[in-house]
Amino acid sequence: MSETANYQRHILFESDFFEVVDITWTSSGANTTPEALKTHGHGWSECSVLVNEGVFENTTVLGAKTEVQVFEKGQVIHTPKGAKHSLRCLSKAGRTLHVYTPKIKDLAQQPLNFKTDKNNGLSESLKLNEPLRLDHLKILLAEVQKNSISASSPYFMNQLFSGVSPQMMLANELISQTKTTLATQEASPVFSQVESEVIKSLCSQIGWSPKASEGVVVPGGSAANFMAVHCAKQKYFPDMKAKGLQNKIFKVYVSQDAHYSFKKAAAVLGLGTDNVSAIGVDEKGRMKADLLEQAITADKNAGFTPLLISATAGTTVYGAFDPIDQLAAVSKKHDLWLHVDGAWGGPAIFTEKLKHLTQGIELADSVTFDAHKLFGAAMTSAYFLTQHKGILLSANDVSGADYLFHDNDDEIDRGKMSWQCGRGADAFSFWTIWKSLGTAGLGQFVDRLLATRKEVETFIKTEPRLTILGIPEYLNLCVRITPPADKVYAAADWAKIVREQLKTEHKAFVNFSTDKQGTFLRFILSHPELETQHMVQTIKWALEVQ
Amino acid sequence: MSETANYQRHILFESDFFEVVDITWTSSGANTTPEALKTHGHGWSECSVLVNEGVFENTTVLGAKTEVQVFEKGQVIHTPKGAKHSLRCLSKAGRTLHVYTPKIKDLAQQPLNFKTDKNNGLSESLKLNEPLRLDHLKILLAEVQKNSISASSPYFMNQLFSGVSPQMMLANELISQTKTTLATQEASPVFSQVESEVIKSLCSQIGWSPKASEGVVVPGGSAANFMAVHCAKQKYFPDMKAKGLQNKIFKVYVSQDAHYSFKKAAAVLGLGTDNVSAIGVDEKGRMKADLLEQAITADKNAGFTPLLISATAGTTVYGAFDPIDQLAAVSKKHDLWLHVDGAWGGPAIFTEKLKHLTQGIELADSVTFDAHKLFGAAMTSAYFLTQHKGILLSANDVSGADYLFHDNDDEIDRGKMSWQCGRGADAFSFWTIWKSLGTAGLGQFVDRLLATRKEVETFIKTEPRLTILGIPEYLNLCVRITPPADKVYAAADWAKIVREQLKTEHKAFVNFSTDKQGTFLRFILSHPELETQHMVQTIKWALEVQ
Repeated sequence: MSETANYQRHILFESDFFEVVDITWTSSGANTTPEALKTHGHGWSECSVLVNEGVFENTTVLGAKTEVQVFEKGQVIHTPKGAKHSLRCLSKAGRTLHVYTPKIKDLAQQPLNFKTDKNNGLSESLKLNEPLRLDHLKILLAEVQKNSISASSPYFMNQLFSGVSPQMMLANELISQTKTTLATQEASPVFSQVESEVIKSLCSQIGWSPKASEGVVVPGGSAANFMAVHCAKQKYFPDMKAKGLQNKIFKVYVSQDAHYSFKKAAAVLGLGTDNVSAIGVDEKGRMKADLLEQAITADKNAGFTPLLISATAGTTVYGAFDPIDQLAAVSKKHDLWLHVDGAWGGPAIFTEKLKHLTQGIELADSVTFDAHKLFGAAMTSAYFLTQHKGILLSANDVSGADYLFHDNDDEIDRGKMSWQCGRGADAFSFWTIWKSLGTAGLGQFVDRLLATRKEVETFIKTEPRLTILGIPEYLNLCVRITPPADKVYAAADWAKIVREQLKTEHKAFVNFSTDKQGTFLRFILSHPELETQHMVQTIKWALEVQ
Repeated sequence: MSETANYQRHILFESDFFEVVDITWTSSGANTTPEALKTHGHGWSECSVLVNEGVFENTTVLGAKTEVQVFEKGQVIHTPKGAKHSLRCLSKAGRTLHVYTPKIKDLAQQPLNFKTDKNNGLSESLKLNEPLRLDHLKILLAEVQKNSISASSPYFMNQLFSGVSPQMMLANELISQTKTTLATQEASPVFSQVESEVIKSLCSQIGWSPKASEGVVVPGGSAANFMAVHCAKQKYFPDMKAKGLQNKIFKVYVSQDAHYSFKKAAAVLGLGTDNVSAIGVDEKGRMKADLLEQAITADKNAGFTPLLISATAGTTVYGAFDPIDQLAAVSKKHDLWLHVDGAWGGPAIFTEKLKHLTQGIELADSVTFDAHKLFGAAMTSAYFLTQHKGILLSANDVSGADYLFHDNDDEIDRGKMSWQCGRGADAFSFWTIWKSLGTAGLGQFVDRLLATRKEVETFIKTEPRLTILGIPEYLNLCVRITPPADKVYAAADWAKIVREQLKTEHKAFVNFSTDKQGTFLRFILSHPELETQHMVQTIKWALEVQ
């Protein structure tokens, strides 16, 4: 917290867990009002301010959302964990009582709140056998936190997610306190409603009729892709549920840049990894519909059974979107299941600016959507959505669970549609974020990061050692970095070297990938508070690596 | 909080989120020390107490664990969410400053903190579209909580889990704050270590050599059972990973009381639900080894391929344990994969009192273990464990994920062994509980509930309208309740009627099941603070139902 001359802090109570502070505000010099407290976070402390005297304007920044309110004597301003706020005294003088829990610590969140040391010295203390006192456990947990990588910093750009939103924290706390299972309506009445609401709203955003569509929360985007293959099999060969795959050799078609989970699905569901066809892509990284058509025809001629096409909406490296409408035409012609893996790029459906990338998504039989990636829900909050209402029940419901499902509700127990039995309220944190930002706000979330990407592109173009790869359309930015003139021998590995150094110096955490010419940096724009300056700073650090 | 005449509360600061209270302690009458504050919880408030004057003895109850410590002037006593404590002034006088966040509310936790009204009136406010201010969101979240069922009450005996431990709350908060993924070591260095440590310790408790065994966290017990079938296939037919199931018809053997997830697994993995054989059980609900032997021989003669036997350790209704050693002999004879589904009964391995129930578990090829059931970890904290080190990688690793797995670590990235890609630190809350209680403490956790069950059995035997079903060996208690004399026509449905009434009157939440003679009540002993009195009270309420 920055201190200015015209307010005075008096600590009333201080411990590791709590701090109670009295602040007196007085106007200084020419200013008619005392200077404001600058926008500041409290790390993972919650903060409550009681106005004892005067009138204050409070601005809260909740990740992608900003709120301004005026508070008077007797009112309390509350800033949840992970949020930021600023305070301005509107009257000539004021007095506020501040309570923080835990005590504010300078976590140096930007950019240093992750550690990457391999030898953290914790191995011994992590071992399980002897009981540990609560106070010692708390010390150990603090060590765990200090040595863990946190996604809270905007300099965390390594994964397809970043940021820890206060809305998510509030949701997670409530989930912890109730600890119910989503298997049955009776055990989880409200969380079941929440899950239905999120799924209905996602289906509607895709363009599906609420009456014809449905979905289920799954433990990650991979699981949603597994479910797509499973439902496709159910649609075309419903007797296989009881009889097994028997003699069929199914074929699944994805782009060569698609997520590896389709191979896992093929291994697990009994299709075999050899039967996942990786179709070639164009210069933007998009699956070529003509190559797909050729592959299907060839497989049919060879006696195989084409089953499913998956269009990737947002590939992991380049953020490319397969042409869904073109693939839909192919799937229609051959009567195949069309899936859209929108684990990373699904949020494009929320903004007009990117609607062209997901054109035709309403024609898909099913869609994967991950809210723990771009929108910052808890890990994980993933959805399998389909416009074949009823197929989840017919594919997954089995007898033998009368002890659990009592069939006395109007609503179907959601556990019957799932591969899981007991499972947590994974949809809740996304619901809290969506509820807070609103549907339009989710679109603005994407738009703001797109604008940041464009500003960063402009900066990159001024740097001769940097080259943007491909044609960025989404929130991935792949950048080739050439080494300093005296290190040209290391050109192919340079991005990897740069990335390691940024990481070990605790500056920033970005990923790298490799193409024919060698390694390059991959920046992911995902943190709700990511600004151009964070990325420009990271790139400047990258250019300084020797 | 109970107030006595000899201490005085003075509220310094009060809001919905915080309360700061000054308490003065004086000795009264013959007592040389002021009366103690009785053991009390603060609902979901955290509490910090600063000792300003005097010496105090504090007792903290952390679910299954109790800690006593003495505090002097300047020291701070911290009670985490969900825990309980009592305070005793050891000196003639004292002064303490108490900070609570949020403000303590009387949540009437026992037994009323769950609601079951279907029409909670929340449907409209749960809808997603317009943004919502933070203060309104908080009001709505409070409504969600009020209308949700919470597993925190000991009167919640409906599921195979109950209770919300402070250790789990601490773990979950840290997980929320870091939000990393367990896919790679570099993104989750400490949480990956924690996961390895929990798995190693579980394998060792089973009796496996740490060098030969391994495991992976999965999203629930069902997923662990799926993984068992998948690994069995990998062991015996490794080329099916690439080629698919082709023409084989596999058979999987479980008891007729086994969990329904094996049928789901058969549907999903391409075996077909018809190929799950439900073997008959004895009077204790245990799979009969001779019937199993007959079924396998018959299937072999019919040209099928027997693949896996699953022994259930703790069935959902009766808590029965299949004779693992006998099934191990059958599996050895026919060279089949032996799995033990210990989702509910796995904790028996921690106590000598129940070791006979899991005799032979060390012979199993794999084991399912759920820590979110009996031991109260977060939903979900589930483990697939196997003594075939390396099989998870060979069964599940696929190419095409170079963007994520960079192969520069000594340790294998745990994501390669999993069906999930991004996933949370599900092992962490169990680690926190285990660390806090110690290995022996986990055994005592089971023992204490077993002793409670026996006391309750004694009480039940005094009630002519109650009959215990089967021979309880674990933490399930199935009880037939006959209706009052004027309601004998409803005998078969009576347990269901009783259960509904207990639920709608917000007294207790127990489950029912059905056998040939009709419905009966199923009590699950799982809550760490469950006492005989809670169950006796519930049974008395059940007997009062008209």
